[in-house]
Amino acid sequence: MTFWTDAQLASIDRMLNPRSIAVVGATPRMQYGGRFLAAALGARGRVNVYPVNPRYDEIQGVPCYASVSELPEAPDVVGVVVPYHAVLDTLRESHAKGAKSAIVISAGFAERGEDDRRELQVELGRFAQESGLRVSGPNCLGLANLKDDIWASASSRGAAGLSGPIGLVCQSGASAFGPFLTRAVDEGIGFTYIVSTGNEADLDFCDFARYLLDDDDTRVIAGFVEGFKDGRKFLEVARLAAERGKPIVLIKIGRSELGAQAAGSHTAALTGVDVCYEAAFAQYGVIRVQDYDDLLQVSNLLARSPRPPQRGVAVVSHSGGISSLTADMFGQAGLDLPPLSERARDGINGILKGFGWAANPSDVTGFANSADFPAIMSYMADDENVGALVVASAGADAQAEQVIQQRDSRDKPVAFLWTGTRAAESGLPMLRRAGIPVFYVPDKLAAGVRYLNDYHEWRERRLGRGFGTAPDLTAQQQAAAAGLGGGKALSEYDSKRLIGAFGVPTTREELASDADAAVAAAERIGYPVVVKVDSADILHKTEAGAIRLGLQTPDDVRRAFAEVTANARAYDANAGIGGAVVQEMVSGGVETIVGVSYDSQLGPILLFGIGGVMVEVYNDVALRLCPVTREDTLDMIGEVRAAQLLSGFRGAPKADGDALADVLVAVSQMAVNLEGRLAELDINPLIARPAGQGVIAVDALAVAGG
Amino acid sequence: MTFWTDAQLASIDRMLNPRSIAVVGATPRMQYGGRFLAAALGARGRVNVYPVNPRYDEIQGVPCYASVSELPEAPDVVGVVVPYHAVLDTLRESHAKGAKSAIVISAGFAERGEDDRRELQVELGRFAQESGLRVSGPNCLGLANLKDDIWASASSRGAAGLSGPIGLVCQSGASAFGPFLTRAVDEGIGFTYIVSTGNEADLDFCDFARYLLDDDDTRVIAGFVEGFKDGRKFLEVARLAAERGKPIVLIKIGRSELGAQAAGSHTAALTGVDVCYEAAFAQYGVIRVQDYDDLLQVSNLLARSPRPPQRGVAVVSHSGGISSLTADMFGQAGLDLPPLSERARDGINGILKGFGWAANPSDVTGFANSADFPAIMSYMADDENVGALVVASAGADAQAEQVIQQRDSRDKPVAFLWTGTRAAESGLPMLRRAGIPVFYVPDKLAAGVRYLNDYHEWRERRLGRGFGTAPDLTAQQQAAAAGLGGGKALSEYDSKRLIGAFGVPTTREELASDADAAVAAAERIGYPVVVKVDSADILHKTEAGAIRLGLQTPDDVRRAFAEVTANARAYDANAGIGGAVVQEMVSGGVETIVGVSYDSQLGPILLFGIGGVMVEVYNDVALRLCPVTREDTLDMIGEVRAAQLLSGFRGAPKADGDALADVLVAVSQMAVNLEGRLAELDINPLIARPAGQGVIAVDALAVAGG
Repeated sequence: MTFWTDAQLASIDRMLNPRSIAVVGATPRMQYGGRFLAAALGARGRVNVYPVNPRYDEIQGVPCYASVSELPEAPDVVGVVVPYHAVLDTLRESHAKGAKSAIVISAGFAERGEDDRRELQVELGRFAQESGLRVSGPNCLGLANLKDDIWASASSRGAAGLSGPIGLVCQSGASAFGPFLTRAVDEGIGFTYIVSTGNEADLDFCDFARYLLDDDDTRVIAGFVEGFKDGRKFLEVARLAAERGKPIVLIKIGRSELGAQAAGSHTAALTGVDVCYEAAFAQYGVIRVQDYDDLLQVSNLLARSPRPPQRGVAVVSHSGGISSLTADMFGQAGLDLPPLSERARDGINGILKGFGWAANPSDVTGFANSADFPAIMSYMADDENVGALVVASAGADAQAEQVIQQRDSRDKPVAFLWTGTRAAESGLPMLRRAGIPVFYVPDKLAAGVRYLNDYHEWRERRLGRGFGTAPDLTAQQQAAAAGLGGGKALSEYDSKRLIGAFGVPTTREELASDADAAVAAAERIGYPVVVKVDSADILHKTEAGAIRLGLQTPDDVRRAFAEVTANARAYDANAGIGGAVVQEMVSGGVETIVGVSYDSQLGPILLFGIGGVMVEVYNDVALRLCPVTREDTLDMIGEVRAAQLLSGFRGAPKADGDALADVLVAVSQMAVNLEGRLAELDINPLIARPAGQGVIAVDALAVAGG
Repeated sequence: MTFWTDAQLASIDRMLNPRSIAVVGATPRMQYGGRFLAAALGARGRVNVYPVNPRYDEIQGVPCYASVSELPEAPDVVGVVVPYHAVLDTLRESHAKGAKSAIVISAGFAERGEDDRRELQVELGRFAQESGLRVSGPNCLGLANLKDDIWASASSRGAAGLSGPIGLVCQSGASAFGPFLTRAVDEGIGFTYIVSTGNEADLDFCDFARYLLDDDDTRVIAGFVEGFKDGRKFLEVARLAAERGKPIVLIKIGRSELGAQAAGSHTAALTGVDVCYEAAFAQYGVIRVQDYDDLLQVSNLLARSPRPPQRGVAVVSHSGGISSLTADMFGQAGLDLPPLSERARDGINGILKGFGWAANPSDVTGFANSADFPAIMSYMADDENVGALVVASAGADAQAEQVIQQRDSRDKPVAFLWTGTRAAESGLPMLRRAGIPVFYVPDKLAAGVRYLNDYHEWRERRLGRGFGTAPDLTAQQQAAAAGLGGGKALSEYDSKRLIGAFGVPTTREELASDADAAVAAAERIGYPVVVKVDSADILHKTEAGAIRLGLQTPDDVRRAFAEVTANARAYDANAGIGGAVVQEMVSGGVETIVGVSYDSQLGPILLFGIGGVMVEVYNDVALRLCPVTREDTLDMIGEVRAAQLLSGFRGAPKADGDALADVLVAVSQMAVNLEGRLAELDINPLIARPAGQGVIAVDALAVAGG
């Protein structure tokens, strides 16, 4: 699917890199309109700035125009700061004038939670898309181009000299120009652009992210998102980001129900079910963080670091207590501090001469602030098991210079754990200026380095395996799915015919309309058999007493047929009953569960778990968006903690993992192709037999789409 | 047990509140000795300061003495900054002079990892304890009394006006006077004392914590610990802290193996097994955090907040994006943002008049910086479901004043999420000065408020239920435990006799030395029975083929006796075999596991889990230090995720939780009383039968202590 047009990206380009800015609703007073004008005027001389307000001839020292029509040129971007009911007219007038884009600061749309305002917002979006005058907002704070120091924002906050490798896109303007901007200034972390998208009537997070993928100066896309307007579009931009090697680092609200509700009351965006997003982020290499400092620091680390050649980390500090805590946090983050080579240890001990501790982590005492420190760092960073160097200290400029020089002398990441005051006047400012990624507490540093490693490893794997495809339906599959519709559950028998057509092995079984037919079927299938009622209306056959297992003789089968049909009728007098199914009896193996559901934002989701109490008690399941690759399914299986039951637990034979993976791929492709026609699918249990003997679906329930 | 003497506490009191300080090894140069002297001289006029160094007549402008003996008075504390080999002589001389305490800065002891240095440290500790001249260090950086601005420290860092309610004790001096001190200055968080304890040859973290419990100005004890010298002493100080209502907030290294190793290489302290510490912290109300900022911010929140009357939190912000993220993080932390009462909602809406969002969280837009903000905050904080008020903003002094006034006007905690620059010159400094607890990212704030609630709830529960006791052994128990020793495993039969004496119901069973006796036993017990070999040498009876289940007839029993004894001999020709045990056959119920182990630092640990794969696959167990109260055991059972199997899972009957709790209490008391004689115990399975029918130990293995 194509989500973006060249014209749209060109409009965004003008919005982000304008040569002319009009501010409709500019005022002398420093409220929204006045602030927007003042911000834009910061680029006066480089950008033509036109206040528009019929009540003034001049505002803030520049000539003011009565209307957009009267402007001397068609502006690249129009800042709209007028009452909500005047916004659409302003956009129409701007379009007529030939303006390229607009930023609607005005609030009073969908965020009010009233139908007419919601409709007005929809109209606004429709106008933008039809006219080609693309719009950011409404209810946003605008944006900033840090590369050229152009601010088209109604925030009172600005900052000069904040250019850097991160593109920041937030729905919340107060967050973009609040904590993110101020903390970035505090920490000397720089951006290419800061964009607030507000209610996203037209352009959304994904559109700006897509634009930033084409911007050579943006190396990481950082985002704060309350909900995605279009989950599929997000997946597509994440896929492209993976191809280009630009990490997406996100705060996404919805970790808890509280956040989802709060976000829902604030914007019109739909906050999807968080577990599906978690699965999507893992699958698409999106790095999810959860606070302001994280977003900035992790983005900065990723933007400024090469790929670590190994996962091992070397930590050096002036303090044993600090290096121990740092090591502990790396261990907790799942990273290793490999032991130093003998060469490195001997080399460092030659310098320390009995003081401190040459190891990993190293506690080098006062040598961290001496002319010997570069040699110590080199011994550690050059070690072949070391992929990244971490310095945990708080020295002066001399130490900072030494660390910068280490960074510049080889292609391994260097990160700094600053253990002193955040207000330091020596050391820290130099590190920041030089673009050394700085963290302030050990656990955040360790988590950051973990993300750095995981991202690059994920990307290599993903580029190798691709994102999975779903081949078109075969004629047989078309036929099997032909009857789906009406939002109804299928009977077990029909559900199995459906999945069978997609390559899922099912039990041998026959429909029998009376006891004689059941016995004949049992003879063909071979004893022991199972007899179950055949009804799409009875989903809980065990509860209804409508299933008999382990039948050994014709008499058993005859009796079972009578019982299950009678019990089913007693259980639900209105159930449609088509007789009974006679089924081969499967014993042994490991019970697994394979399921499909559809997320309104992200589409088909594949679920895998090990059966029994593990799924119910521990929610021990793996989720993936569909389609999946075969490698993805092996990851899924490995991710389920109870997967050890498949690999020869307590002397049991190893289960047929290959066949399991085949079924997961087949079901994921089925889920893609039947979207809209299928609402959900449960194969439970799917028995995994010993290796070489395949898997077999013993029960299945498909529910057709509405 | 009494861990502290009055004399010891008096010595610590002199050390922390000295009227005279001698600095042995003082120098004009600003290395350790020079820095210690300079720091002490900061209190000149209030404290007598005596440099001691035979090479100088005067240092830093004060008269210098050739030796401690020549001092004009017996100093309250002697700072020792001499080479390691001269430390003990200096202490002896100081003791002879009548000095009350000493701080040994000198390094070169156990941290070097060499036997002779370790022994020297032991000797130092012994001298301190025998002489009564108590010692902090060696290898520490000293301490600071912030209440009176007295610094007895070799750190180059100091700070004036940093008095506050937190007592900080760190083993690592570079951490105490590095990140903790500098960040506290950054954030305006104040201390009563800062103590670094170094290698803890004599006084340790627990001793200083014990002193701080008696200090009225210390409301929270904050610590950074690599390992405890004496786990039991820590538990005792934690118990006393609970009584006094002074929370202990800790960073404890050892979350990962890496940290444990690193800490091990740095100090001589033993880093215990982390899961046992986690259990101990939960049981003793110790709040474990993991980074520098956490330790300070959480301690500050606890020190400055009353107990929240309810768990519900109200969040108000100028921004929807900020309030949504904050709500999300509260949800993730397991706290609730209750819906506002109608009164509050109407009241706030009356102010907002259509702008913003009156809810919880509230997004009050610009009203957060207006004269209406106090009314909005009052509506929220006065709500009866609200226990604490959180303001997420970054306003100027006017807003800060309003928030301070809210804090002062009712007995509910008020915390601030500062969303602006950390370098703000308005608002933030005023909040800090007024002692409003400030956080800078929403997840840390939410975690902090969670700790605040959990601590007070924990304390109320703990004071109600006590810490558990273990009554003395009965004569019968004495007799049952009489033979324990030699580090050997007991047979299943003997293990069950042992636990039976302590009140654990076991299967009816008899020892039989031949097949006839086995049949006779089976007749008495009643069929079906189980026959198992009786041997202390065969721990895995199933693997050895030495167990037969479900025997229905005398012939079955006879055959089983022959088989299990033969199989046992074939399995291990050297095993001592005392015949076989004939046992009642137990079926149904839920398999649980109860176990005891002994941690070298923390003593007896009780384990509870639900049997089968849950323990092996998910490590789904609850641990507690012994003894436990009955309420503790109910918590343990509830903490195991699979506990739902006990409460009528899938239509099964509810299990006998009362009987289970009784057994857990009994086993914990047994574990306390048999410490040293018992090394470990496994009751696996302990079958929990339906309510009213009790529990029964089907298998048990006790291993005697060394």
